[in-house]
Amino acid sequence: MPEPKQNPIRPTDDEARALARSLLDGASHGALGVIDPETGAPMVTRIAVARDAQGQPLTLISTLSQHTKALTSTPACSLLVGEPGPRGDPLTHPRLTLQCEAKFIDRDSAEHRNLRALYLSQHPKAKLYIDFGDFRLVRLAVTQAFLNGGFGKAYVLTPEDLQK
Amino acid sequence: MPEPKQNPIRPTDDEARALARSLLDGASHGALGVIDPETGAPMVTRIAVARDAQGQPLTLISTLSQHTKALTSTPACSLLVGEPGPRGDPLTHPRLTLQCEAKFIDRDSAEHRNLRALYLSQHPKAKLYIDFGDFRLVRLAVTQAFLNGGFGKAYVLTPEDLQK
Repeated sequence: MPEPKQNPIRPTDDEARALARSLLDGASHGALGVIDPETGAPMVTRIAVARDAQGQPLTLISTLSQHTKALTSTPACSLLVGEPGPRGDPLTHPRLTLQCEAKFIDRDSAEHRNLRALYLSQHPKAKLYIDFGDFRLVRLAVTQAFLNGGFGKAYVLTPEDLQK
Repeated sequence: MPEPKQNPIRPTDDEARALARSLLDGASHGALGVIDPETGAPMVTRIAVARDAQGQPLTLISTLSQHTKALTSTPACSLLVGEPGPRGDPLTHPRLTLQCEAKFIDRDSAEHRNLRALYLSQHPKAKLYIDFGDFRLVRLAVTQAFLNGGFGKAYVLTPEDLQK
């Protein structure tokens, strides 16, 4: 294996855009990074992931959870998607890091009705708890993305690169 | 499904400690949350995970990567382990969130020789690149842990709870 070059970022091409979109489209869950309001340190938890009509990530989280309290305090967050599966080297499996701003959806809005239907079409079992008082739909508006396609195959992507 | 109680944290017991240790022991990779030095926002990436002699997480990362630059600037980080696997609801699968301080291991130290051998015993293929100039062994010293054993089964654990 040759030693890697000093700048591992490659120019973004259509193949990279398609791979990034497929990783996001295929994600039923992801690892969410938030800022812990008590310590200012990062905290990573697992969340369910769906997509809104534009293909941007959407989640359903409980206000009782630490990540929701953190997002209320600091909306800047990060989402890792692209599960490696049970076989092979997990670090050669492609994955996508998103940097996002969390947007809580007002329960009484038309947007909530639309996103609720979209969410349930992708996570039908959430019907059991989506209307609980402590659950909130949250859009994760992407500000920047980093695609790692395996050793030495890294790309920086814009929100537009992820649009369908 | 009943609506959850207001405080979902349960008292830590031996079953929770054993589950947390098994999630950490079984992890070959995890989702690392760091603070992006350019924006101050969280960033989540995938890293390989091994364990030191005390069972604490250990990783091998490239200084060319964004997470390594971030940890050099802010050592406070978080690691999520406990992969859900291909079947079932990922949010009912147990997972462990660790809050950690990254400790870079000096290459010329006796500790490095010991940890290098331990790392390679758990990730034999890393022999191909562990001695590259840009790779560093980093211990993730746990400061606090959060175990999510599925809906409504949350625990706060101390570093001692994770000791073997």
